Amino acid sequence: MKDGLAKPGERIDDLGRNGYRILTKPDRFSFGIDAVLLSWFAKRKDGESVVDLCSGNGIVPLLMDARNPGGRYVAVEIQKDMAELADRSFKLNRVADRLKSLEADAKTVSEILPKHAFDVVTANPPYIRKGSGLENPCGAVNVARHEILITLSDVVREAAALLKPHGRFYMVHRPERLPEILKSMEENRLKPRDLILVLPHEDRNANLVLVEGVKDGRNELKALPPIVVYDKAGNYTETVRKIYQE
Amino acid sequence: MKDGLAKPGERIDDLGRNGYRILTKPDRFSFGIDAVLLSWFAKRKDGESVVDLCSGNGIVPLLMDARNPGGRYVAVEIQKDMAELADRSFKLNRVADRLKSLEADAKTVSEILPKHAFDVVTANPPYIRKGSGLENPCGAVNVARHEILITLSDVVREAAALLKPHGRFYMVHRPERLPEILKSMEENRLKPRDLILVLPHEDRNANLVLVEGVKDGRNELKALPPIVVYDKAGNYTETVRKIYQE
Repeated sequence: MKDGLAKPGERIDDLGRNGYRILTKPDRFSFGIDAVLLSWFAKRKDGESVVDLCSGNGIVPLLMDARNPGGRYVAVEIQKDMAELADRSFKLNRVADRLKSLEADAKTVSEILPKHAFDVVTANPPYIRKGSGLENPCGAVNVARHEILITLSDVVREAAALLKPHGRFYMVHRPERLPEILKSMEENRLKPRDLILVLPHEDRNANLVLVEGVKDGRNELKALPPIVVYDKAGNYTETVRKIYQE
Repeated sequence: MKDGLAKPGERIDDLGRNGYRILTKPDRFSFGIDAVLLSWFAKRKDGESVVDLCSGNGIVPLLMDARNPGGRYVAVEIQKDMAELADRSFKLNRVADRLKSLEADAKTVSEILPKHAFDVVTANPPYIRKGSGLENPCGAVNVARHEILITLSDVVREAAALLKPHGRFYMVHRPERLPEILKSMEENRLKPRDLILVLPHEDRNANLVLVEGVKDGRNELKALPPIVVYDKAGNYTETVRKIYQE
């Protein structure tokens, strides 16, 4: 086992930031640009604590910590093997004293973790409504992409329950779910503050949206300049290159 | 009186499209880029009927008709002098047989106009919540900019009441009101379909949003590529120049 932490068939990817690496399984979803954008969008100030819901292999806490080392994180993941993989990645990066993997159902995690206790909650939940879209034959990929085990409103409700007053919720999702996202946030007293559309190309419809909500916040929604991922030549735009490097 | 239709102190502006002109009063709000964008965003197919709520001097129906002549329009405006001005502009352009000015309160207009009878409803309503922002000392400008006589939810409710099944609602508003806009639309069975953010400059927050809703629609929301109004040199972008010319 390379580094004594990777099991046969697993791979270690370099995150290209602060020397951090992540364990991935080739037959499972590792991470995409959505996790990178979320970890950039979610701001953690010194001393603040973070819970990441639907954490998978723990990519979002790892990227956030690589960007701004310090602070405490709980990575909540329902799939036992993925939670275990996240735990080993945290050990691999020697941050397991601060980044904790919790194998738990995010749908009821506020019964396990303390309520109203965290400064930040992040979530990159499954995007696709149960029964719509093509389901991947691999069960674990299904769980990550489709709302099989958890729905959008479950995620928002639990985030709100975990957050302190004025705590911040950061989520990446699909623009087509925006009406539901904003509705769930309002129902759970998470006041939408910053919103960023993400377009694959400048002349294409947005395929991701980043939304910040503030618990019992009073600010009005701001629609920030959209992020365009690829330029006309098919390369990352300067904005996205900076986000990957920051 | 120039053209026999302008009264002293009034001005006739050329709309730069199809020879259409509009009467304006110098002490009153005439129209801005929001009306131009709304008239471009709101698609009227042949044979379709349109109601424009909070119509002011009738600019939105005039621009829509100049872009695509034909069809029937009702321009609903509560301020007597503005409704009268719209009526004279429609006569000035010799379209008063198809474009009708109705002096009425948009808040209760579905008690006057037939319900479930129109294909399209457009609205460029007051943006600013009552009591917030600086109110203009001029009462009539206040009515156009602040929610003094009508609220966002009034506009959406009346639009829904006027529309046929699968009729389309097109509104321009402020992005900070987006959570309320989408909520009101859902409550009134107007399913959000197309959404476009409008940014003054590419690196500035959006200051307008265009939203389409379909009565009892089933499509999912699409966030279209944003519109950027000015380029770095401070000139209209090519997109906006095309919208003005189309």
